[in-house]
Amino acid sequence: MRVAELSELSNVSVASIKFYAREGLLAGNRVGYNQTEYGPEHIVRLRLIKALINVAGLSIASVRRVLEAVDDEQVGVEEVLERAHEAVAPTNLPAVGEETLQRVRELFDELGWNVPEDSVGFRQTAAVISQYEQIGRADLSERASRYGPPVMDIARGDMEAVAQTQDRNTIAQTVVIGTILGDSMLSAMRKAAREHLSDAS
Amino acid sequence: MRVAELSELSNVSVASIKFYAREGLLAGNRVGYNQTEYGPEHIVRLRLIKALINVAGLSIASVRRVLEAVDDEQVGVEEVLERAHEAVAPTNLPAVGEETLQRVRELFDELGWNVPEDSVGFRQTAAVISQYEQIGRADLSERASRYGPPVMDIARGDMEAVAQTQDRNTIAQTVVIGTILGDSMLSAMRKAAREHLSDAS
Repeated sequence: MRVAELSELSNVSVASIKFYAREGLLAGNRVGYNQTEYGPEHIVRLRLIKALINVAGLSIASVRRVLEAVDDEQVGVEEVLERAHEAVAPTNLPAVGEETLQRVRELFDELGWNVPEDSVGFRQTAAVISQYEQIGRADLSERASRYGPPVMDIARGDMEAVAQTQDRNTIAQTVVIGTILGDSMLSAMRKAAREHLSDAS
Repeated sequence: MRVAELSELSNVSVASIKFYAREGLLAGNRVGYNQTEYGPEHIVRLRLIKALINVAGLSIASVRRVLEAVDDEQVGVEEVLERAHEAVAPTNLPAVGEETLQRVRELFDELGWNVPEDSVGFRQTAAVISQYEQIGRADLSERASRYGPPVMDIARGDMEAVAQTQDRNTIAQTVVIGTILGDSMLSAMRKAAREHLSDAS
């Protein structure tokens, strides 16, 4: 199909499609001079781009970096995961004092998790604990130990969903969607669970 | 102490303190004409305001609505919880079709959760599942069932932390911080757990 039809079917304007193509987020098949053909896979691609930008609030540069990893068959799934983590991490993670870092090391040791200190997971956990301390509620950072087992259960569920998929492209897409929209799902369901408990009490 | 000292100790500018006071987020004790006294509780209050605005990205109006509930001793803890949920919910929750709503009802029935349809938890869950469907990955919404038990475990942990606290003001503050910074904590720890699993595989 041509760009006009793709626009109609995907509900994305022709101007936006051309912009995404120029930014390298989407590539149609060139057929002759100044003509590009698109297939059904491009409708799905446009919806993914829209979700990453509108729902997850990613920048064009972050979307490009994530989709490059999804598209490149040479890139392993661990690398796709790491790039998805980087894309959704707050960009302004504050510097954290040595005392807080030590607390995070002890937390992960106690849980038996092997988390590299330069990973997004380690740095973001340290940043949140540091914020609790600054509000004068360091006591709340103890909840991190309590959260450990259920959070590991959730992460295992994520990995099971990935393991059920055979082809690499679907796996890569699943990792990206699971990471980025998965946080919204957990936030929504946690509210629902609290509403259930609050109602029952 | 006077506003200049409060500014120094809290690391918030005098202009910002006066702005927050005008917006009703903070009230010092008037002593005579054009003089206001502050105590150590105002340092903690300013840090909480900063965390809600800078970390959680709340608007001034949302912060005011949440803090009004925290301050008003007549407001029950369930109401504080609901206001905190509203404050962190995406403001532009899309309308969701009847078929998706039915799927969400079935999900919560299956989990045995009693979640009112007009609650933030229900509406946000429906919005996320609708997004999965639009990306052509309705299969991923099945993960919501898998997430149910660990998410309920997390919510029970949240309620335990609240139950351990005696005085209403601390409870209200714990609910707000737990709701709003708790999502960041879970997002961070989920990444850490996935990094552990990805490393071990």
